[in-house]
Amino acid sequence: MPRIITLTTDFGADSPYVAQMKGVILSINPEVRIIDVTHTIPPQDVRQGALVMADVAHWFPPKTIHTAVVDPGVGTARKIIYARIGQHDFVAPDNGLLSRLALSTPPSTINTVAEREFWLPDVSATFHGRDIMAPVAARLSLGLEPSRLGPRQEELMRLDWAEACVTGNKIEGTVQSIDSFGNLITDISADALAHAPRGEEVAIVCDDHETHGIFNAYADQPEMTLIALVGSSGKLELAIVGESAAVMLGVPVGTPVTIKW
Amino acid sequence: MPRIITLTTDFGADSPYVAQMKGVILSINPEVRIIDVTHTIPPQDVRQGALVMADVAHWFPPKTIHTAVVDPGVGTARKIIYARIGQHDFVAPDNGLLSRLALSTPPSTINTVAEREFWLPDVSATFHGRDIMAPVAARLSLGLEPSRLGPRQEELMRLDWAEACVTGNKIEGTVQSIDSFGNLITDISADALAHAPRGEEVAIVCDDHETHGIFNAYADQPEMTLIALVGSSGKLELAIVGESAAVMLGVPVGTPVTIKW
Amino acid sequence: MPRIITLTTDFGADSPYVAQMKGVILSINPEVRIIDVTHTIPPQDVRQGALVMADVAHWFPPKTIHTAVVDPGVGTARKIIYARIGQHDFVAPDNGLLSRLALSTPPSTINTVAEREFWLPDVSATFHGRDIMAPVAARLSLGLEPSRLGPRQEELMRLDWAEACVTGNKIEGTVQSIDSFGNLITDISADALAHAPRGEEVAIVCDDHETHGIFNAYADQPEMTLIALVGSSGKLELAIVGESAAVMLGVPVGTPVTIKW
Repeated sequence: MPRIITLTTDFGADSPYVAQMKGVILSINPEVRIIDVTHTIPPQDVRQGALVMADVAHWFPPKTIHTAVVDPGVGTARKIIYARIGQHDFVAPDNGLLSRLALSTPPSTINTVAEREFWLPDVSATFHGRDIMAPVAARLSLGLEPSRLGPRQEELMRLDWAEACVTGNKIEGTVQSIDSFGNLITDISADALAHAPRGEEVAIVCDDHETHGIFNAYADQPEMTLIALVGSSGKLELAIVGESAAVMLGVPVGTPVTIKW
Repeated sequence: MPRIITLTTDFGADSPYVAQMKGVILSINPEVRIIDVTHTIPPQDVRQGALVMADVAHWFPPKTIHTAVVDPGVGTARKIIYARIGQHDFVAPDNGLLSRLALSTPPSTINTVAEREFWLPDVSATFHGRDIMAPVAARLSLGLEPSRLGPRQEELMRLDWAEACVTGNKIEGTVQSIDSFGNLITDISADALAHAPRGEEVAIVCDDHETHGIFNAYADQPEMTLIALVGSSGKLELAIVGESAAVMLGVPVGTPVTIKW
Repeated sequence: MPRIITLTTDFGADSPYVAQMKGVILSINPEVRIIDVTHTIPPQDVRQGALVMADVAHWFPPKTIHTAVVDPGVGTARKIIYARIGQHDFVAPDNGLLSRLALSTPPSTINTVAEREFWLPDVSATFHGRDIMAPVAARLSLGLEPSRLGPRQEELMRLDWAEACVTGNKIEGTVQSIDSFGNLITDISADALAHAPRGEEVAIVCDDHETHGIFNAYADQPEMTLIALVGSSGKLELAIVGESAAVMLGVPVGTPVTIKW
């Protein structure tokens, strides 16, 4: 059964830099499957990269090797790490890119990627995705024992992931990302929402916009209506049926969202 | 010989939602080939999705499983269907997405996708591409008998596809799509054009723009010239040599095109 | 071991035209690996396509078949060629698209692609990527002897690739391309730079912007600083740390860059 390597970067859709990484990987393991997760993480936005990793990684088969390169610190002392999280392997800079995923599933193993014999012979100072992470992922896909990559490490670098806050008859969260339809994805999980009623008596407030009730499907409300629902990633979403909520409301990532009842 | 699954969606180029579908597919059939057709169908534009399906599907090998997700009705009573059209298999919402293709090649089999045992165990109300269509396509690629997906259905939902109209010495059609070079692709087929002469005596009028003669190649006219020719999909195209006709003429999809002689 | 075909075009990210080429290739060789290099070469910009080919091709395994379609002359007398350059095979229009790569590695074999038996039976006048180049690449991946494609040809069509000019204590070059981070990539190679010092005494001037010193990594300077460094393709780059230099400086491709000391 062929191993799978996924790629997540901020190189831009359709970037030749991604193709260079694929060339390196296939030069080492011509049989491996390569799947693009996304290359349009906003440049150097480690938090958005971390959210994508947390939303996407677990949909792949066990033993998939997820390679993530959002790496503003390339060429500095920041480490590159291998981690085993759940049933998947990860190769990434140790800058918080795996820290959202690690909140729900703590890594069982972490190794610093330090042994140069598994890298390309010439390592540039500006593109470790190609020169270190791609060859390491390719060698893991051939069965390289992760412990050979470098010394064990106890902890990942962590970013601060404020949890949505449930208090009495209120939940306070934040718009965490905006998808390609312009839907506003919050950090309010279905678990947190279990505290709230679903009917007209619940108000969802974002910036100076307000809607009532928590629905199941976009089609539960007429076109052009602001609707709150639990989206496909299990988080509360705000959407405008048939339109881009992000464009129509002018609401950026980071905007507070309050649920009251 | 590995089976092929193609993906056509409106999720946006490089969307992590597409990656989730790929993860689901590969979790069920790690050997299947996955090919992206396009993910930049304009959001919820079923007609453009239908045009792409009609232009692209037949270029693939027999037994390819084309999976198309442009699904404004997700979460409503709209059905999901399996169809066999020509030598290919299709999985899509029954909202007209296959109706352009079915005009020229009527489906030989249609089944409503109804048996939940072939879906993911948990089905969201907002992402049936991932939770129903991806696992169904993956199971078909493993040899699942389509009749097991659900009951036979006689007809696809159809959209209205006005044919270009040939009358006496005139053909009336419409701009149906705009390609990435800004060429205006009409619904006037090479068959319809057989009624018209090709030389200077034929006038092609679009909005308040007019050109004469029907050519073979962009290079048959100098740069910056409006040219009419039969494009690679067998339809009349209007192009401006070396430029974007869509941008320079400001002509949107739906604009009438008249050929007179 | 499966053969690899790469695709480089100006069809636009995620274009259905690319999917048609993939369908044709897989119809001929269902086992071949297809890797996208990029489809966002600016429309008909043969020079940018040639730069991408030169930067990316050599990262792939030996025997990879690189297929490049930036083809403003489609339908004219311009030839299509097969070339063997280093350990790779290439199929492309003979319009200079391979000429940047051929500067450093002269082709060992060139054949005009002329024998119609290896093309699709019906060849459009507007899409030779699908109708000629895709089937030829697919047949090469099955082991077709390149000499059967058509007659030997002595030379590729060449474009003028001015070399960065080293004179006394000055190097004069040009911005050749802009990457997805907005970094300005010049034609000044690490070899040329070996003539210059690296410290504060060296000035790099681009338009009316100036910086001092040649660094190794973006992180060697603080955010918002203009920095010169040798990038991952071995060329001098100008970057603004954490920002897009192209946007902030308003510098287009073709702008002169001077290094003085």
